[in-house]
Amino acid sequence: MDAESLRQLFTAVRAGEVSPDEAVAQLRHLPFEDLGFAKVDHHRALRVGMPEVIFGPGKSPAQVAAIFHRLAGHGDNILATRTDEAQFAAVLELVPAAERNPSARTIVLRQDSKITGKGKIVVVSAGTSDIPVAEEAVVTASIMGNHVESVYDVGVAGIHRLLACRPLLSEARVVIVCAGMEGALPSVVGGLVGVPVIAVPTSVGYGSSFEGLTALLGMLNSCASNVSVVNIDNGFGAGCVASLINRL
Amino acid sequence: MDAESLRQLFTAVRAGEVSPDEAVAQLRHLPFEDLGFAKVDHHRALRVGMPEVIFGPGKSPAQVAAIFHRLAGHGDNILATRTDEAQFAAVLELVPAAERNPSARTIVLRQDSKITGKGKIVVVSAGTSDIPVAEEAVVTASIMGNHVESVYDVGVAGIHRLLACRPLLSEARVVIVCAGMEGALPSVVGGLVGVPVIAVPTSVGYGSSFEGLTALLGMLNSCASNVSVVNIDNGFGAGCVASLINRL
Amino acid sequence: MDAESLRQLFTAVRAGEVSPDEAVAQLRHLPFEDLGFAKVDHHRALRVGMPEVIFGPGKSPAQVAAIFHRLAGHGDNILATRTDEAQFAAVLELVPAAERNPSARTIVLRQDSKITGKGKIVVVSAGTSDIPVAEEAVVTASIMGNHVESVYDVGVAGIHRLLACRPLLSEARVVIVCAGMEGALPSVVGGLVGVPVIAVPTSVGYGSSFEGLTALLGMLNSCASNVSVVNIDNGFGAGCVASLINRL
Amino acid sequence: MDAESLRQLFTAVRAGEVSPDEAVAQLRHLPFEDLGFAKVDHHRALRVGMPEVIFGPGKSPAQVAAIFHRLAGHGDNILATRTDEAQFAAVLELVPAAERNPSARTIVLRQDSKITGKGKIVVVSAGTSDIPVAEEAVVTASIMGNHVESVYDVGVAGIHRLLACRPLLSEARVVIVCAGMEGALPSVVGGLVGVPVIAVPTSVGYGSSFEGLTALLGMLNSCASNVSVVNIDNGFGAGCVASLINRL
Amino acid sequence: MDAESLRQLFTAVRAGEVSPDEAVAQLRHLPFEDLGFAKVDHHRALRVGMPEVIFGPGKSPAQVAAIFHRLAGHGDNILATRTDEAQFAAVLELVPAAERNPSARTIVLRQDSKITGKGKIVVVSAGTSDIPVAEEAVVTASIMGNHVESVYDVGVAGIHRLLACRPLLSEARVVIVCAGMEGALPSVVGGLVGVPVIAVPTSVGYGSSFEGLTALLGMLNSCASNVSVVNIDNGFGAGCVASLINRL
Amino acid sequence: MDAESLRQLFTAVRAGEVSPDEAVAQLRHLPFEDLGFAKVDHHRALRVGMPEVIFGPGKSPAQVAAIFHRLAGHGDNILATRTDEAQFAAVLELVPAAERNPSARTIVLRQDSKITGKGKIVVVSAGTSDIPVAEEAVVTASIMGNHVESVYDVGVAGIHRLLACRPLLSEARVVIVCAGMEGALPSVVGGLVGVPVIAVPTSVGYGSSFEGLTALLGMLNSCASNVSVVNIDNGFGAGCVASLINRL
Amino acid sequence: MDAESLRQLFTAVRAGEVSPDEAVAQLRHLPFEDLGFAKVDHHRALRVGMPEVIFGPGKSPAQVAAIFHRLAGHGDNILATRTDEAQFAAVLELVPAAERNPSARTIVLRQDSKITGKGKIVVVSAGTSDIPVAEEAVVTASIMGNHVESVYDVGVAGIHRLLACRPLLSEARVVIVCAGMEGALPSVVGGLVGVPVIAVPTSVGYGSSFEGLTALLGMLNSCASNVSVVNIDNGFGAGCVASLINRL
Amino acid sequence: MDAESLRQLFTAVRAGEVSPDEAVAQLRHLPFEDLGFAKVDHHRALRVGMPEVIFGPGKSPAQVAAIFHRLAGHGDNILATRTDEAQFAAVLELVPAAERNPSARTIVLRQDSKITGKGKIVVVSAGTSDIPVAEEAVVTASIMGNHVESVYDVGVAGIHRLLACRPLLSEARVVIVCAGMEGALPSVVGGLVGVPVIAVPTSVGYGSSFEGLTALLGMLNSCASNVSVVNIDNGFGAGCVASLINRL
Repeated sequence: MDAESLRQLFTAVRAGEVSPDEAVAQLRHLPFEDLGFAKVDHHRALRVGMPEVIFGPGKSPAQVAAIFHRLAGHGDNILATRTDEAQFAAVLELVPAAERNPSARTIVLRQDSKITGKGKIVVVSAGTSDIPVAEEAVVTASIMGNHVESVYDVGVAGIHRLLACRPLLSEARVVIVCAGMEGALPSVVGGLVGVPVIAVPTSVGYGSSFEGLTALLGMLNSCASNVSVVNIDNGFGAGCVASLINRL
Repeated sequence: MDAESLRQLFTAVRAGEVSPDEAVAQLRHLPFEDLGFAKVDHHRALRVGMPEVIFGPGKSPAQVAAIFHRLAGHGDNILATRTDEAQFAAVLELVPAAERNPSARTIVLRQDSKITGKGKIVVVSAGTSDIPVAEEAVVTASIMGNHVESVYDVGVAGIHRLLACRPLLSEARVVIVCAGMEGALPSVVGGLVGVPVIAVPTSVGYGSSFEGLTALLGMLNSCASNVSVVNIDNGFGAGCVASLINRL
Repeated sequence: MDAESLRQLFTAVRAGEVSPDEAVAQLRHLPFEDLGFAKVDHHRALRVGMPEVIFGPGKSPAQVAAIFHRLAGHGDNILATRTDEAQFAAVLELVPAAERNPSARTIVLRQDSKITGKGKIVVVSAGTSDIPVAEEAVVTASIMGNHVESVYDVGVAGIHRLLACRPLLSEARVVIVCAGMEGALPSVVGGLVGVPVIAVPTSVGYGSSFEGLTALLGMLNSCASNVSVVNIDNGFGAGCVASLINRL
Repeated sequence: MDAESLRQLFTAVRAGEVSPDEAVAQLRHLPFEDLGFAKVDHHRALRVGMPEVIFGPGKSPAQVAAIFHRLAGHGDNILATRTDEAQFAAVLELVPAAERNPSARTIVLRQDSKITGKGKIVVVSAGTSDIPVAEEAVVTASIMGNHVESVYDVGVAGIHRLLACRPLLSEARVVIVCAGMEGALPSVVGGLVGVPVIAVPTSVGYGSSFEGLTALLGMLNSCASNVSVVNIDNGFGAGCVASLINRL
Repeated sequence: MDAESLRQLFTAVRAGEVSPDEAVAQLRHLPFEDLGFAKVDHHRALRVGMPEVIFGPGKSPAQVAAIFHRLAGHGDNILATRTDEAQFAAVLELVPAAERNPSARTIVLRQDSKITGKGKIVVVSAGTSDIPVAEEAVVTASIMGNHVESVYDVGVAGIHRLLACRPLLSEARVVIVCAGMEGALPSVVGGLVGVPVIAVPTSVGYGSSFEGLTALLGMLNSCASNVSVVNIDNGFGAGCVASLINRL
Repeated sequence: MDAESLRQLFTAVRAGEVSPDEAVAQLRHLPFEDLGFAKVDHHRALRVGMPEVIFGPGKSPAQVAAIFHRLAGHGDNILATRTDEAQFAAVLELVPAAERNPSARTIVLRQDSKITGKGKIVVVSAGTSDIPVAEEAVVTASIMGNHVESVYDVGVAGIHRLLACRPLLSEARVVIVCAGMEGALPSVVGGLVGVPVIAVPTSVGYGSSFEGLTALLGMLNSCASNVSVVNIDNGFGAGCVASLINRL
Repeated sequence: MDAESLRQLFTAVRAGEVSPDEAVAQLRHLPFEDLGFAKVDHHRALRVGMPEVIFGPGKSPAQVAAIFHRLAGHGDNILATRTDEAQFAAVLELVPAAERNPSARTIVLRQDSKITGKGKIVVVSAGTSDIPVAEEAVVTASIMGNHVESVYDVGVAGIHRLLACRPLLSEARVVIVCAGMEGALPSVVGGLVGVPVIAVPTSVGYGSSFEGLTALLGMLNSCASNVSVVNIDNGFGAGCVASLINRL
Repeated sequence: MDAESLRQLFTAVRAGEVSPDEAVAQLRHLPFEDLGFAKVDHHRALRVGMPEVIFGPGKSPAQVAAIFHRLAGHGDNILATRTDEAQFAAVLELVPAAERNPSARTIVLRQDSKITGKGKIVVVSAGTSDIPVAEEAVVTASIMGNHVESVYDVGVAGIHRLLACRPLLSEARVVIVCAGMEGALPSVVGGLVGVPVIAVPTSVGYGSSFEGLTALLGMLNSCASNVSVVNIDNGFGAGCVASLINRL
């Protein structure tokens, strides 16, 4: 129920078509968000061009396919994350146009190819093992309507490789940096650019990397003041945050 | 050595005033950043309207005052964080126009009042004890050229207080959310707005809050996909990230 | 030896059938709980209408079935938790009336359908992945003689969904809240109701959720003062505590 | 604005005294909780006989005294927790009837002595060092309108001391158990009673007690199924939860 | 009520002086430990020659002195641990024969100098900083009636120093080993002797010693199979365990 | 080379049968322990009646069988821990008299049935899931020459079950207590007996039991002063320590 | 572009063949490391005699084989770490001269057998379970051109075994020490030698060894001042560091 | 007793001057290290030119001064670490030539200025707050006979500052890198040089830096394979390790 509907309700009350008690009851039983207040508009704004998102783990291939298929009918872009091959096979049967990025483990259906991001999002990864997380960020930001470019395998122990990417970094409106092990790359990238850096710790490493905890802590303590952090292996979240920034 | 100087060097070589070997030697001994490549421009871009920042802890009042005074001569805005009264007293003697926010523990000198942020930054805090961190974010974003508004004491256990702030939240281009204890507020705010949310865990709490660790972990695991996180009590960092986003 | 037996012993002593020394010896060698003192009565009170409980993990299908079958003979309700399909198949052969909730992974035999809980227990879960834990709480509270209702997928990042459940929440005498990731839901629910809230952290999440630790810590630091917490994924324990409260 | 006021608004609209647009505007600008929906009633219910609570740390004596004095004017019971002597001295000047429990570090003003709890709350502590936390629970539950009794120094290494308290435990409608070090007491008490047990880990101990973490973990893993847990040293929270249970 | 009293009760019942019902009631209201069953005897056995122990922290000088003075009247040995100079001064006024070991921070009054330990307890420490903990063990074992010898500063990085102590180690019936930092000493000592080794991690160290946690973990993972461990800095506990072993 | 051999060497030198240089060389190339100093005697003492021990994990069935077979030739008792069925099958082919305890996962060959322990070792476990660890302790202590008795399923939440075991506990010279979850049992047992208690945390539990860490921490912080602790699930270590104590 | 090329560029500028602006452009677009500055030389120096390294995990047999085969063409030594049998089978098909160390899980191709290390590297391990990590260090140091010797199973609980190795230890120019469990061996070895000790914690152990964390912490807190540490199970890293030291 | 003395002993035995029994007794009562075996020689080698070291914390000014004065008489260099002003004042009275570095908190007496290090040790620090730790490394390496140079404030967020130091880095035989916060600097430096890098995490930072733990973990997970790590703030240890390497 939006503001207009609310006005109609009051008008009907005034006209005697609805008694005050009935009006109170109607209001009482409506979900809050239907009252047409500000938040709902924002939610709409938030959703423009946004993909519907399906989180794969714990869902059967049939379930993923069914949800995917139903959402496909709305005409939106669709993104399924952390999917496996079996889930993709099931989706393909119902939605032949769906595509899977095996590295990112994503399935997407692109029905709206409008670019809503105002600039370029650059995704950087430290090592080749970080690429799946980086690709999840790439796919997410891309399906959310952004120009995305990526640079992989530019870890800090070979700093010249990263420095060689400065021209590309200088074109970014937002940078996403994925790194495991010591998680040092966002600090260095943060010092090279004047735009927001979204850091994604990855679970790449062994021993005292503690499945990404070390990288996470390193990024949270970055000495570069333009770095903020998302959860371990959360390429999807980084892609979302970067997309929202890039729309501003 | 910028690009112009580099061109002059080549010109001098051509003119025979400098031998090729001498030119190589000159290049070899110059710091990299003086070559005038792309990054430096970005650094300049980054610094436009940016305050010079002094980190107070571990510096004597005299040291803070001396650095503050020297920087004041450059005409930039100046920000000192985590300062105490004694440091402020020392600064005031040399820079009478400096101002201290005792809650935020900041000292600022505002010499450039240009607003470079394109929209409004809203800073939200969960409890009254989180205010010092929130204020550090407010002061930082403000001195970096933004319109900043703040809403305090809207923790999730009294959700109506937060919902009452929706009109203000809906005006934000970036939202900073500071919370200690369980750190749940960014998730709720993230669900109410369609813009980036910078979450700042605070060390407010006791027992198993582990001086902000619980809030930090909670924020990193936010179920809202527009949330990214900075270090515990890092109001300054949140203010920086928000400012960079708000300039885009 | 209950109070009656004790009286008989004293009577036999008085009658000279048992010497004082023999009586002392008899008392000395009896297990304490057989003396019929207060605690045993409480244990009895505690057990009225309570199911016998079997913890599935580490037991073979044959073992679970044998225990289940033996207990079934006592006429009590029976609850087996964390069971698998093979265990259920074995139980069914011996106890055809047993029923399994595959989501909750419980097997129950309901032989006593008396409702001993005085009000309604409402079980709330944040996401669909938390449902198995929530269902374990539902089944437990239900087999312990309570009216139970549940509301799922009302996580804090879409606060309107939760607010829409207020009428149901307002009817609860006790609320159980299950949530993984940041574990913020109990704080919000706690602020919406005036009754005890039992918080159950779930192991849902990834990366720095640390298999439920983050949710657990968040709930322990809840800013709502009507929240207490049980172990990660302990839907059974929450169901027990809520049942005991609801009998008061 | 409660349901009655809402009905009056609709009546006024019907009577033409308020236009539909004005009515919408009134609704739109009111805080949500003023709409008179269910939750507000609960909040009232929740607050009946409840003290206003002031958290002492971080507040100056003058601040505590001022808040205490203002709240005293409402006629409610007042509870200030974690206060020091200086804060009490300041309160006493403005509110001579205030009383301080130096062990619990609480200041209370009892203006409403109605007993709203239906039974007895028993507070148990393991060692003498746990008494301050236990006393905070006692004071909280007491000021919230409960009969409270306490038993101290009945730690599990001298189990006979605890067993000697069984008669008292058997009278409890809710039991609060405070323990530091290994935090084992709630499990033993939980096995002795058939009512809910609220466990409060305390920071008593040294070395690998990790300031209460060990006790907290122990309590969360209690093998007694009637135990739920609050934060370390949170006697206040335990008192609140117990009070809510005791009103049911 | 001991076994004798119990017999008298039965005799009185037989004599008709007490009715069976009254006898039941008397038994019912007595604390369990007064029934004179086996455990109490053990407690007595346990206490023979044992000191009464006062834990100093959190007690005022006057409190420590008062308790010390009262216990002194029983004729037992008395041990106060973790005391400070002020507490000792207060004790001395009331009990002039009390002695303080400033390194161990203990105060003792020796009124019973019987040696109940059958052999020698040897206390070993890794570094000079571990001596206070080692001394607490020495004082504890000594006041509990043992011959105790100590060897200090024989850390594993200078293994020859330890090897030089083998003759003494070979005379021990129990060995206590105190070490901070990496906590390696118990493993080496464990390999050199054929008797039980009680390992005491100390909080000596810095950085990643985590106030004794590293030493504690090291000792728990000792590759010597005759090592068991007590809490960090718990020289008193080690002295108790060693004493009990040495009495066997 | 023992002291006697050393004397023979010197005698041979005196007799001119061995030159001084040759004697130095002989000493220099001998392992230190062969010099016949005190420690070696102790090692012998330590080894009397001790089993040879094989740690199963990471060894192939053939390897375990080969080692077992070779050791069997020495006439000692043999103990293999943490073995699986395949390893046992392989051992049986070579050593038909070997026996496996499937719960304890041990394989033993008893060739020396002398009882060297002076009293009884009692092994107590909290729950049925702790039995494998308890059985490993039983088998270890038994094969090392002790009378061992065990009591299982006497967890602290049903304290009467434990109290019923007091007569047995009172006969123990050493007690081993195995418990998972909150690990509270050693504290209660410690308070019931006057002899050393070896606590073994088990990995039994889920969620915040952290695979035995919670039980371990609880035991280290035991309020009973006769408790020392070994590593998680280390039934073998507890059996060794108890055996060494029981020989004293 | 090395220094020579740079000189040619300047010469071409002088000769008028390249204009100053073109020269600037050429420099601007070259990767930094191609400028021939010092670091590149060092990289070359670093790489002399160094193997190319392939990290096996996460790569298919075909991928490992393809990379291995391509690198083999350069004439360098090649090292693949953490490989499995399938990867080795694939490599063998393309590079028949490749050899696998099944314990170390390495595959090597030795094409350059020059010894560049100036002395001997000795690798020590505490237990037989640590051998795979130790072997990885041996293989790494060996393929990098060093004389390597190893001593295994000299853990600290049998110190005489280690002392018997002193002659070998005294010949080492660098010592690598691998140990799990309590990680005490590097401290003891560190005290026996006057050269750098590289400590490698291994994940050998169980329970509170926390998969190598305990050993890691122990080594970082070594009381020997010649010990530095690498990541858990990082035999490769230790081999690299030792090789670099041994070339100095 | 070295090998020569041992030979003399045997010779005396042969000559009948010492009986075999007396010879055995002499050997038996000598400390092991006096037997003149290899290790002692190494210890001597280790100690050549090494300072005697005093660890300041926990020692009174008088104690530090007394030890310092006594050691000064041996003619060696002396190093006291983590000292305060009062300790220095006391030392100065007895040893006027002693010097204190207030940043490093060291006191040194240089009596032997021989340079035994073969090359240059370069000490790098990330931020100005890391300087005290870096200076401790500088002083340690210097007093141990090395040429040491230092570069401070070259953190990774301003990578150009570090790159400008490459010429100096390229001259190092060993590099020590001190960094707090995310601890990323050693990885970058490690990639720039071909020599061993000793990484020293510092406790600089706040919040989730956890007093150096984050930096420590980052360094242990360095993607550069020439990095090894010492304890948090252990500038002294890094100086020792570097010195030993530099002597090779």
